[in-house]
Amino acid sequence: MALIVQKYGGTSVGTVEKIEGVAQKVIATVEQGNQVIVVVSAMSGETNRLIELAKQIDDCPAPREYDVLVSTGEQVTIALLSMAIMKFGHKAKSYTGAQVNIRTDNAYSKARIIDIDEARVRADLEAGNIIVVAGFQGMDEQGNITTLGRGGSDTTAVAMAAALKAEECQIYTDVDGVYTTDPRVVPNARRLEKITFEEMLEMASLGSKVLQIRAVEFAGKYGVPLRVLHSTEDGPGTLISYDNEGETMEDAVISGIAFNRDEAELTITGVPDQPGIAYQILGPIGEANVEVDMIIQNVGADGCTDFTFTVHRTDYQKALEILEKTSQKLGAREVSGDATIVKISLVGVGMRSHAGIASTMFKTLADDSINIRMISTSEIKISVVVDEKYTELAVRALHKAFDLEEKPAA
Amino acid sequence: MALIVQKYGGTSVGTVEKIEGVAQKVIATVEQGNQVIVVVSAMSGETNRLIELAKQIDDCPAPREYDVLVSTGEQVTIALLSMAIMKFGHKAKSYTGAQVNIRTDNAYSKARIIDIDEARVRADLEAGNIIVVAGFQGMDEQGNITTLGRGGSDTTAVAMAAALKAEECQIYTDVDGVYTTDPRVVPNARRLEKITFEEMLEMASLGSKVLQIRAVEFAGKYGVPLRVLHSTEDGPGTLISYDNEGETMEDAVISGIAFNRDEAELTITGVPDQPGIAYQILGPIGEANVEVDMIIQNVGADGCTDFTFTVHRTDYQKALEILEKTSQKLGAREVSGDATIVKISLVGVGMRSHAGIASTMFKTLADDSINIRMISTSEIKISVVVDEKYTELAVRALHKAFDLEEKPAA
Repeated sequence: MALIVQKYGGTSVGTVEKIEGVAQKVIATVEQGNQVIVVVSAMSGETNRLIELAKQIDDCPAPREYDVLVSTGEQVTIALLSMAIMKFGHKAKSYTGAQVNIRTDNAYSKARIIDIDEARVRADLEAGNIIVVAGFQGMDEQGNITTLGRGGSDTTAVAMAAALKAEECQIYTDVDGVYTTDPRVVPNARRLEKITFEEMLEMASLGSKVLQIRAVEFAGKYGVPLRVLHSTEDGPGTLISYDNEGETMEDAVISGIAFNRDEAELTITGVPDQPGIAYQILGPIGEANVEVDMIIQNVGADGCTDFTFTVHRTDYQKALEILEKTSQKLGAREVSGDATIVKISLVGVGMRSHAGIASTMFKTLADDSINIRMISTSEIKISVVVDEKYTELAVRALHKAFDLEEKPAA
Repeated sequence: MALIVQKYGGTSVGTVEKIEGVAQKVIATVEQGNQVIVVVSAMSGETNRLIELAKQIDDCPAPREYDVLVSTGEQVTIALLSMAIMKFGHKAKSYTGAQVNIRTDNAYSKARIIDIDEARVRADLEAGNIIVVAGFQGMDEQGNITTLGRGGSDTTAVAMAAALKAEECQIYTDVDGVYTTDPRVVPNARRLEKITFEEMLEMASLGSKVLQIRAVEFAGKYGVPLRVLHSTEDGPGTLISYDNEGETMEDAVISGIAFNRDEAELTITGVPDQPGIAYQILGPIGEANVEVDMIIQNVGADGCTDFTFTVHRTDYQKALEILEKTSQKLGAREVSGDATIVKISLVGVGMRSHAGIASTMFKTLADDSINIRMISTSEIKISVVVDEKYTELAVRALHKAFDLEEKPAA
């Protein structure tokens, strides 16, 4: 008998009817001979309703009380889902984060899970119960209610799966899997059967919003196989796991193409090429809590260097002002920037053992006269920054060049 | 520094504005030099909204999950009230029933409080916090969430006051105190400064809906002085406490007049006057879960007796049917009943030491030609049953006869 953890998000439990639908999906899994733990989010709209109440009192409410407030959203869902499962003739038992002893630190609204006491859940499973757990919440050492921050329900599901050594952690969403790229840009993008944790992390962090990064990291750390599935349609979804030697992963060189239009590019030219210059430029940026993504430094011929980096687009103005000040201090030649860029990345573990990926990429873009502004590489990805207006053209051309399209049925 | 427990019901916290009003009342009490624990109910309407969700799934939802669901109502209020108190510059900390360790049995939806762990609350009070506690809820030995049943927030407040030996437990309501009788019937009814627990129990159980009986019983058992106050208007309210010898209670013979139109009367006549007859008549009624209030048996001259009792009006038809069957079995003469009666009671500890109360009562009713159908007495009350249509006439006449009116200011 296998133990499966399933997670359903707010949209999947948005109405009483949808909750009953989830109950039936859960029961179907049990009737296939599995034990099931279900992790659920608040009904869609509920969290916003609660936040609105808080904002009427205080725009910046006390974090401890904010967590007490919003954690009621999931508590409503676990009760209703348990009732629905029981109505359909199965045993169910609900648990809040505190009851299942999801211990977190006390960073309210963005707590991290430290430990889970699985004994009680294990006993209830053995007694034939379907366990329904409130996602997104936990309890700190002092018994204070905490919430886990965005995507926290995914993290709860993975943590439960890790603690109870579940066979699989299934994340039900509004898409039927992870695609080679965004199907809105490339209509014949293909659903991947499998992808590795590392690839998924690159895909997720680069704009593919199917799974939360923290949940993927967590699953990778504890080796919990993750599966992304559609919450109402049947299908195998996409399995995210380790690239075990014994297993046959798909042998594609490239698994997918991610792109991110949320970044902006800043350049400072003509700064003295001396030790510590990177810190002098990026230090003030970091102190202002601006996160930097890509960083490129060119060595100049005249003892000067150019320095380019990207930040989140919402931080662009702030970063530009800081950089102007730094420029004056360093006596740099010029500061420039551009907020209308896109970062496009090829992702794939197959890249490790294949040469020529980069040159195929650059040639493909050149063939369409797309100018590359920045390049950055890692072991399993190559990213380029180009003008935002080329997004669709570039992604479609690369998708075709690397043979990622859905093939007609044989 | 005195410790005060305050309780605000659903109507008093029905909107964000009202919650802010409660925050200010609480802060005013603290600024008078007190420590305060506030117990709150769910915002009015919220509990019904949650029950409606449950009913959409199952008309008779699992009790454990029902309690998980409805207990979220108070959790929302404690968070919002704590935020409001902090906005106004004071320290606050919220606690769910489970967090403050309100241990109950596991009779879901009508659990009883077994114990409260006061150490943590005491420490938070000493650190200068206003403590905000979710009413109506607790946790059983196994950590399951329980709720206390109707009026449970009053009970939570009294239990907190008892556990922490508070100086006073203040129940804020939509009336400014306990009155000599219902002011809608007798416009010049007078607010009582003080009333004993015993009197309050009689007043409460006889239809004066200001306080829940269980909370009054609980307060009496632990000697917690209770005060009923208006939630938005200022005023001293009514203090409910023991009639201590040293204290001067009001020296009125009668404290108040309660009346109850929720009962119905049933009579069985011509039953054999033999041992065990009362059980034969009332046994089947009790087995059908019908509660009996007043019971009167007259001794007849012919070896037969008449037997009259009252039940809640909603149980009238059910009781009548059972009584018809009993009548056939016993060979009784007749079964009759009347659902349009009222029970009017004079309540007062002063009655103990004063003769002539009953005769004044009967004469007053006779002067207005009101026929008395049943009489029942206890140490601190005299109840009569009369035709319901005489309610206002009888209550007003008695109110005047016993000199209970509000006196013009001296």
